[in-house]
This record gives sequence, structure tokens and C-alpha cells, in this order.
Amino acid sequence: MAQNIYDTPEFFAAYSRLPRSVEGLAGAAEWPALRALLPDVRGLRIVDLGCGYGWFCRWARENGAAHVQGFDVSEKMLARARAMTSDPAIVYARADLDHLTLPAAAFDLAFSSLTLHYLSDLPRLLATVHRALVAGRHLVVSVEHPILTAPAEPGWLVDPAGRKRWPVDSYGNEGPRVTDWLAKGVVKQHRTLATYLNALVGAGFAIAHVEEWQPSDAQIVEHPEWREERDRPMFLLLSARR
Amino acid sequence: MAQNIYDTPEFFAAYSRLPRSVEGLAGAAEWPALRALLPDVRGLRIVDLGCGYGWFCRWARENGAAHVQGFDVSEKMLARARAMTSDPAIVYARADLDHLTLPAAAFDLAFSSLTLHYLSDLPRLLATVHRALVAGRHLVVSVEHPILTAPAEPGWLVDPAGRKRWPVDSYGNEGPRVTDWLAKGVVKQHRTLATYLNALVGAGFAIAHVEEWQPSDAQIVEHPEWREERDRPMFLLLSARR
Repeated sequence: MAQNIYDTPEFFAAYSRLPRSVEGLAGAAEWPALRALLPDVRGLRIVDLGCGYGWFCRWARENGAAHVQGFDVSEKMLARARAMTSDPAIVYARADLDHLTLPAAAFDLAFSSLTLHYLSDLPRLLATVHRALVAGRHLVVSVEHPILTAPAEPGWLVDPAGRKRWPVDSYGNEGPRVTDWLAKGVVKQHRTLATYLNALVGAGFAIAHVEEWQPSDAQIVEHPEWREERDRPMFLLLSARR
Repeated sequence: MAQNIYDTPEFFAAYSRLPRSVEGLAGAAEWPALRALLPDVRGLRIVDLGCGYGWFCRWARENGAAHVQGFDVSEKMLARARAMTSDPAIVYARADLDHLTLPAAAFDLAFSSLTLHYLSDLPRLLATVHRALVAGRHLVVSVEHPILTAPAEPGWLVDPAGRKRWPVDSYGNEGPRVTDWLAKGVVKQHRTLATYLNALVGAGFAIAHVEEWQPSDAQIVEHPEWREERDRPMFLLLSARR
């Protein structure tokens, strides 16, 4: 079972102040790149794994999706998501994604944003999603990049020449990493990039596109502080076809 | 055109003293993992891209390959390779892999060990290899891992706690990296992991397996100095199907 850190008051309060919580998708640096991996959502039945406040669910409906099913482990996130829509074609449900079940061939798109690195049992979820997708349809996900999650004690370092560098260690040592991001004791699962990709292939997916996100030139003009993401990728975006 | 550093006397002399030059495949730490990605080679027509001394070509014939065509840019490597076999089913030819042409559907396996990171035009070579393989057959390659090739000035660092760490920078900045490995001014091309994978997909291959090599427990017992490879992957191994 994945940790449900989102329902601890300290974490939830801090999370709710992040740009991506206040501004939605527009506040998520990687959203333009993730959106570019999505098919045209018009008419699609979509499942969102780790829907949070439901920003993606609402965006999908605004762009013509037929139906969106959002799952999240956090009661607080779901309460906020439900308060933000009255659309009957968006349905939210609480689920621990390590134990999720889904009906077979019920969805045309599976989406998951920055959630899978919290899960303990990735192969199980991917098998579930594979079964739940119609053949030929896509899974599009983002996770924290393995270069980001690998170090035992993550953090930038400034070398004697004044260059910011990201020291990597423990890359091959997969498993839990405990960090103090927004709250103390947040548990994420470090997996290598190979493990993510082989888990997709093992579940029967064909890898369609891999992206190690970095900001565009235009984004750096607007957010100079994002430049460091070109030194060390923060997000891994994946598109795979059933 | 790729740099032909192998024919400079200083580099060739140093290269010829490496364990993998003296001992062949047995001296290459990643060989057991790479071999595990290979199909049964019995009866196969094989092309080896960057064959060096021809260790793999000879191994393939010893294991039943029907025919092996080895290409390398280095005259000196090819001379050594030719001197080590009289097998008429192994044919060596000089080629700059950035300009290689191959007959269509002529091979059942394409192999390349630690060569592609020297090339300037990866998509061109992959398109050539795709066309040269019989449908359903495999390309198996190793390259230096992008975490290894990314830094502008690569090198381990020991943090205040005494832990060896590998500082990453410039990961998203693809292109040449000049290092002094075996000789001064060796030029390698840094590409992100995503670029390697998307180039394969773009050429029409299906990703079959991705491995970020690390030593096995047994290998660490024998070579304790290899333990650091678990902190930072050195080799990327890829298997793809046409």
C-alpha cells in the first residue's frame, strides 16, 4: 500500500499552495510537453490515475472527452476535486492504486501525472491498465525522473567553478527514498529508467515516446530559475500503446 | 564523420592494454548482461557495427552463426581482427558508420558494442540497420550511459560524508563531449536516454529491453572496484526488434 501523505495536514496545506495547485495545468512546467504526448481526447473514455484536484479531468472534458474517471488515494484531494465541478461525466473515486481494479477494455486513454513513483507495485498497476485499455490506445504518464529520485540525500551542489551540479548515487539501488518535500518523511519509490520501460514492455505495451523534460527557451525567458532543469532532468514523460 | 581516435598511436597503444582488449569478451564487465539480450545466434547472418578486434564476430561464429560481417573505422583494429582469424565466414570491412550502406534484409542480427556514442548521425545509421534486418529480427547495442557522458567535466566527487557521488550537469545539452580517455581530445556524442530510445522508435524498431548495467553480486566479489557502478550506471544496453 502506498503512503497517503496528501491527507496529512502539513503536506496538504503546503501542496495546496504550489503553483500547480493554485493555477492548475498552467502552473505545471511540464504540462505543454505532456499534453503534446496526448491523443485528441474528443470522444474518449479516460481514466486518470492519481487525479489530485482533478485539473486534468476537467481539461479533458473541456476538450471533448466523453467520460473521465479520476482515482486518488487522498480524501482531501477528492473533496477539493468534487467541489470544482458539477459535470456528471466526471466521476471521482478513492483508490489505493497498488490495489486498483478496473473493468476490461473500458477506456480509450489512461493518464497519470506524477503519481507512479509513490506506488509499491508498478507491474500490477500496469497489467491492470493494459487490461482496461482498448487495443491500440495509449497510456501517457509522468513521473519524477530517476536521476532526481536516485540519491540517498538529494540536493544540488555548487562545484569550485561555481557550476550547479546534481550528484547522483545509489542509482541502481531501487526502493524507498524518504525526503522532506513539503512535509517530513515523504516516501517515494526510486526506480531506474530501465525498470519503468521494462515494466511497460512486460505488461504488453509498446513504447511510443520517451521524454526527459526540460524547459523550452520561451519557458526559460519567463522562468529563469527553470534553467537548471537542463542540467538534471526532473520529470520523465512516457507514452505507450496497448 | 566520426572521429577515428583508434588509429592515433597513443590511443591505440592504451586501448590495446585494456582488459577487454587483452582478455576479449571475458574482460568486458557488461558482456554477460549484453549476451543475455542476444538471441540464439545459430544459423544467423550477423552485422557487427564497430567490431574492433573482432571478439564478438569470433564468438558468434564459435556459437554457430552462419556469417558475420564486421565493420570498423579503424585500420589498426581491423588489421588486428584479421590477424586473429582465418574463418572465411567472418568478413571485415572498413567503414565510417556515419556513412554506412547495407543491403536490404540481409541480416538476422545487428550488434554494436560501445560504438554509437562516437557517431554524429544516429537516425541515419538506425534507418540503415532497420532496412538491413529481416522483419522480426533484433538489434542489440551497448553505449556509454547518458549519465556518464552528460557532464562537461566528468569525474567522481567525494562528499563530506565520504560517499562517492557522480555530479551530473548539462544532461539536456546534447552534442560533443571532449575527454582525455586513453588519449587527449577524444570526442564522444552525448545523447539523452530519451534520444536513443526515440531514435529507435523513429526508425521503426520496437523497444524490447532496456538495461542500465550494474555488476552482479558475484562480479563485485571478484572486482570490488566495480561497486561504484551501482551508484552511477556506466553502460546502457538496448534490445530492439525490427
